[in-house]
Amino acid sequence: EAMNGAGNLMDFLDEPFPDVGTYEDFHTIDWLREKSRDTDRHRKITSKSKESIWELIKSLLDAWSGWVVMLLIGLLSGTLAGVIDLAVDWMTDLKEGVCLSAFWYSHEQCCWTSNETTFDDRDKCPQWQKWAELMTGHGAGAYVLNYFLYVLWALLFSFLAVSLVRVFAPYACGSGIPEIKTILSGFIIRGYLGKWTLLIKTVTLVLAVSSGLSLGKEGPLVHVACCCGNLFCSLFSKYSKNEGKRREVLSAAAAAGVSVAFGAPIGGVLFSLEEVSYYFPLKTLWRSFFAALVAAFTLRSINPFGNSRLVLFYVEYHTPWYMAELVPFILLGVFGGLWGTLFIRANIAWCRRRKTTQLGKYPVLEVIAVTGITAVLAYPNPYTRRSTSELISELFNDCGALESSQLCDYINNPNMSRPVDDIPDRPAGPGVYNALWQLALALIFKIVITIFTFGMKIPSGLFIPSMAVGAIAGRIVGIAVEQMAYHHHDWIIFKNWCRPGADCVTPGLYAMVGAAACLGGVTRMTVSLVVIMFELTGGLEYIVPLMAAAVTSKWVADAFGKEGIYESHIQLNGYPYLDVRDEFTHRTLATDVMRPRRNDPPLAVLTQDSTTVEDVETLIKDTDYNGFPVVVSRESERLIGFVQRRDLTLAIKNARQKQDGVVSSSVVYFTEDAPQLPASNPQPLKLRRILNLSPFTVTDHTPMETVVDIFRKLGLRQCLVTRSGRLLGIITKKDVLRHMAQMMNQDPESIMFN
Amino acid sequence: EAMNGAGNLMDFLDEPFPDVGTYEDFHTIDWLREKSRDTDRHRKITSKSKESIWELIKSLLDAWSGWVVMLLIGLLSGTLAGVIDLAVDWMTDLKEGVCLSAFWYSHEQCCWTSNETTFDDRDKCPQWQKWAELMTGHGAGAYVLNYFLYVLWALLFSFLAVSLVRVFAPYACGSGIPEIKTILSGFIIRGYLGKWTLLIKTVTLVLAVSSGLSLGKEGPLVHVACCCGNLFCSLFSKYSKNEGKRREVLSAAAAAGVSVAFGAPIGGVLFSLEEVSYYFPLKTLWRSFFAALVAAFTLRSINPFGNSRLVLFYVEYHTPWYMAELVPFILLGVFGGLWGTLFIRANIAWCRRRKTTQLGKYPVLEVIAVTGITAVLAYPNPYTRRSTSELISELFNDCGALESSQLCDYINNPNMSRPVDDIPDRPAGPGVYNALWQLALALIFKIVITIFTFGMKIPSGLFIPSMAVGAIAGRIVGIAVEQMAYHHHDWIIFKNWCRPGADCVTPGLYAMVGAAACLGGVTRMTVSLVVIMFELTGGLEYIVPLMAAAVTSKWVADAFGKEGIYESHIQLNGYPYLDVRDEFTHRTLATDVMRPRRNDPPLAVLTQDSTTVEDVETLIKDTDYNGFPVVVSRESERLIGFVQRRDLTLAIKNARQKQDGVVSSSVVYFTEDAPQLPASNPQPLKLRRILNLSPFTVTDHTPMETVVDIFRKLGLRQCLVTRSGRLLGIITKKDVLRHMAQMMNQDPESIMFN
Repeated sequence: EAMNGAGNLMDFLDEPFPDVGTYEDFHTIDWLREKSRDTDRHRKITSKSKESIWELIKSLLDAWSGWVVMLLIGLLSGTLAGVIDLAVDWMTDLKEGVCLSAFWYSHEQCCWTSNETTFDDRDKCPQWQKWAELMTGHGAGAYVLNYFLYVLWALLFSFLAVSLVRVFAPYACGSGIPEIKTILSGFIIRGYLGKWTLLIKTVTLVLAVSSGLSLGKEGPLVHVACCCGNLFCSLFSKYSKNEGKRREVLSAAAAAGVSVAFGAPIGGVLFSLEEVSYYFPLKTLWRSFFAALVAAFTLRSINPFGNSRLVLFYVEYHTPWYMAELVPFILLGVFGGLWGTLFIRANIAWCRRRKTTQLGKYPVLEVIAVTGITAVLAYPNPYTRRSTSELISELFNDCGALESSQLCDYINNPNMSRPVDDIPDRPAGPGVYNALWQLALALIFKIVITIFTFGMKIPSGLFIPSMAVGAIAGRIVGIAVEQMAYHHHDWIIFKNWCRPGADCVTPGLYAMVGAAACLGGVTRMTVSLVVIMFELTGGLEYIVPLMAAAVTSKWVADAFGKEGIYESHIQLNGYPYLDVRDEFTHRTLATDVMRPRRNDPPLAVLTQDSTTVEDVETLIKDTDYNGFPVVVSRESERLIGFVQRRDLTLAIKNARQKQDGVVSSSVVYFTEDAPQLPASNPQPLKLRRILNLSPFTVTDHTPMETVVDIFRKLGLRQCLVTRSGRLLGIITKKDVLRHMAQMMNQDPESIMFN
Repeated sequence: EAMNGAGNLMDFLDEPFPDVGTYEDFHTIDWLREKSRDTDRHRKITSKSKESIWELIKSLLDAWSGWVVMLLIGLLSGTLAGVIDLAVDWMTDLKEGVCLSAFWYSHEQCCWTSNETTFDDRDKCPQWQKWAELMTGHGAGAYVLNYFLYVLWALLFSFLAVSLVRVFAPYACGSGIPEIKTILSGFIIRGYLGKWTLLIKTVTLVLAVSSGLSLGKEGPLVHVACCCGNLFCSLFSKYSKNEGKRREVLSAAAAAGVSVAFGAPIGGVLFSLEEVSYYFPLKTLWRSFFAALVAAFTLRSINPFGNSRLVLFYVEYHTPWYMAELVPFILLGVFGGLWGTLFIRANIAWCRRRKTTQLGKYPVLEVIAVTGITAVLAYPNPYTRRSTSELISELFNDCGALESSQLCDYINNPNMSRPVDDIPDRPAGPGVYNALWQLALALIFKIVITIFTFGMKIPSGLFIPSMAVGAIAGRIVGIAVEQMAYHHHDWIIFKNWCRPGADCVTPGLYAMVGAAACLGGVTRMTVSLVVIMFELTGGLEYIVPLMAAAVTSKWVADAFGKEGIYESHIQLNGYPYLDVRDEFTHRTLATDVMRPRRNDPPLAVLTQDSTTVEDVETLIKDTDYNGFPVVVSRESERLIGFVQRRDLTLAIKNARQKQDGVVSSSVVYFTEDAPQLPASNPQPLKLRRILNLSPFTVTDHTPMETVVDIFRKLGLRQCLVTRSGRLLGIITKKDVLRHMAQMMNQDPESIMFN
């Protein structure tokens, strides 16, 4: 029978040792080992399935469990997203007033049921009462009272959110995407995707968004979906007992999360592929797509937006774009890139300050303060008072004939009666100019407050605030171009494509392009960004403007620093994340990186047949290495395998308890056969079965770029370094990360794991 | 200075040795080495760029060359696709008649310029004359004459096509996708993507499609786009001199090819990712998307379909689908899976017959015979006479009020006057029943003839015939369901969703679902298939039916064999392709696969300081290995490096010519310093610089599943096997493939490389 490392491990696992083959918290998994274990499991089930009908059914169930998990993830994350949407709607409106007919109705729902059916009156139905009206009637102090209550509600919501997070689930704060990226790359953070985190994140996300802070629900929804994924993993031992397989499910869950956040299933899959996942086998691609679709359709059947649309911002434009418009689009791209750079630098500086100074000690106070400032400053301006997604939605929309928004206050030509969806460019009325001022103020406000908001100890996503900044800037540019084109038809730049009376410029498209540019600048998404935007508009028509802005934004932002906000936060938190995109271009060799260094004590190794149990225990006590190479003898330094610290500890503990005659002076044998010893000698301890006989090795002359590549592609934990067959040293993933930081002139110790 | 294997190689490359670091035809590239070389090149350019402005500009150009290549690929492949579309249109119609106003007009173009503008007359404009009308007037024998000329033109076209392929570019035949998959996985086939292939494939593709054979242009368009990619690679040494980087460009070109074939840029990128590419870094994803978009928009500006639509089959449905319809959709999925299995088995059996019997010696005759049969059988049936893409387009379309097609011959209720796009279900008229018969015959005909057509020595794609089979089956099922629903409103299965007078069933949607199922069954595409179909319809509405059919079809087909048509053809041709999707689940170890085997002569190795030039030359002459391990000494068997046969040959040849004192008895040194020898001894030959000091090693106990994984993920050519630091043997990519074949109970020698 063929015996191998993984096989041995499995034989070993059959014995009732708890926790063998698992990992400790904050450790890195070994992808090759996980894969190997899964293949073994699969092999066992396949061979058993021929034995009986029952085993066959079990094997079929096992084969289908992947699809079942995907279905469940889709259903639950779609449902949660729907519930969150509904709750946010209601609670956001609760800050301003209440529905008399049923207090659990949001403003919009309240007025649906009302009898006023004309468009203009829909917002002013009698059932919906602002707080001041309800309490004092239409008095002079009504505005002040409403203002006061708005701030009060906001403070209440955010206080609740931050308290819940602090008390029940500290991992529920932030967007979660940096941590999910790290987890998917093979790191273990226990509890990060747990049930409590799921529950608390869902509740506090509603509170945080409703409080009116400058944050979105998209990033946290990815975290929520991943928690769902983790939850359902525990139903099937195939996934719960294998950290590698579990991560496949989590990749798909991330796709489902984005899918429900934007109603963009294809964009979600590409986001998972491009942005968060590390290993993404093709099988996962297909399943992710399935999960994303199920999630999207579940959300649609809940229909939280009341329009049976799948997408968050549904838009339909009626005019094409013109080549000359690429200039403002590219300018918006530049703006997006600059905003991305500014935001990342300022936010990271502020977060670092929070970590290192007294500030970090008062998270509740910080949240309360920022909420207070946000609410006080936001209320007077109608564009910041409403929820950010409503704002974006309005900015994206083209002005139809029936539009009552201030932004659509154009001066109509009374002689013209055109169909609703083909309105020519018109001069802007006073409302538009007024709106422009308010938008400009809103832009500055959003830019500043978002920097301080992202990173606080509440759930906070970055997509919506980034898009809002871009949409405001884009709409301003769009109106400017539109008015220029209207008033200066004869300018050479407009002459060719914009005749008087034609509908040339769509300001809403500019808002959308600006939103894409800003989102791209902050997150450095590329294809997924364009695809999400494409799914929002539902046509290839506007993909070129979006692409132009996204490409420009990425180039501009990359010129100032390659890292997006998520990578920056990963680095700030010192997670051991080996970015797939970082190119390692230095000419160092494995020998420069491996431990022990020149003046260090020699490498801690075990010998195959001359170490005693006591030696091993001393070694385990004196060092904190995660594993030890096993060599033939200290003189020859010929490597025969690698043994995990955890497995070694457990095996010795177990042997001491259960195996007679194993004492401190027993010799540990890693060889195939232990020699027959006289009965007087202590019983030998055979440990070949926990020995990994196929440790990964490279020679000392291997260029580090190759080593980095191997670590990335194979997902190694450690790699042994040899020269002409002799063991020289060891390189762990953390050594690689330290070395990379050093090469980028960063102090490796200060940035890692702090 | 840090010295390493790759660095040494580069120093060596600076010397005027031609061809060092390149590969021979039909060899496998070493991805790690290519990557290492590119990093070195990049490092050199970056360090030089600080020296002068000119170097800085050169480095910027180098950084931008990737985007330039993508732009050029997009432009050229879009243009070629447009030209091919136009030429196919014209030549397909030429088989039936000619335009009198301008002979280079196709039927449709001819009638555009005519004055008859009503819908019905558009097909019967006076300028367009059938051949018989032109020659003899409307006589009784006109049908026979038209028939005869149709067959004659078809024979002429296919004869021209097969002759051109045979004489000028034998690689231009087939769909090209199996070969491109193999090339992208790292195999070298010189000339396969050459200029001649590009030219001849473009011309013969037009001829083959026009001849009316049951083949499509989609697969060959991918080949054409890859030829364009290869062409533009030669403009930039970054790509032309690095086989790894070249493959990145080719992956993007494949995406552009699918993008123009279907007008589906996102689907194209996913197709490239899922179906053809091997290594697909994220950078490539973004660039592929760019190339695919440029190609799609170039094609659109050429506007070959005359409808300014990007997509090949644009459809718009007006009714939703209902849950109960999932049953027929899933049945269509089953049909698709069965068709896929049948087609693959029958086609492979026929192709194997062609390879092994006399049949293969008369490719021209074969093409002529199949064309003759196709033309003779196709003409009488209106659904097979027209081009396959027109047929699919008609089958996909919903019957509007103005539709003149036979398929839309429903009995209208005269009392009803509904808007055009909301026609209720109606009883079928005699035309529909007639059409059903003809469609059934067309289905059988297409199924049989496609099996014999695919694999002949002309360019032939499989997408269109597969989709046609599915679309016919789907339309038949769709009409059946529609009529059942109309005549049996009261049946329990229809009761809930189909009231009398409602428009419940869209037969066109069934055709589309059937097409997706059949395409999926043959190619085993998953996400890319659904996304392409989604881009055709442009709405998420119908993604669930498509997904249901695609999933079912894949499951059914996979139950009969995991391999799609492309993988089957790769295996038939014996290309060394290591499929990313095949899971290796056997419990063999590296030691079972490595060479030498138990009774073989020992491994051919070189020693680091005791081999003479003559010994090396003898070894090169006596063996045909691609490289040799270098060990410290034969006794210790400690590995120090690996040297490529090609580099060794070139180095010795060069030394003998240029270096004084190197004779047969000179000792070859792979050590860092050659010892100082007395002048009487022959001059030593130092070859450390061609020695790869970081060869890849695994231990003999490594499970083969891990070895396979390493070969796949790192793209290795070979891997050395050691046990406790001693060199035991070597595993090459071909050994791995042989072993995998053996494990699947196939005779490894009979299937490989024949």
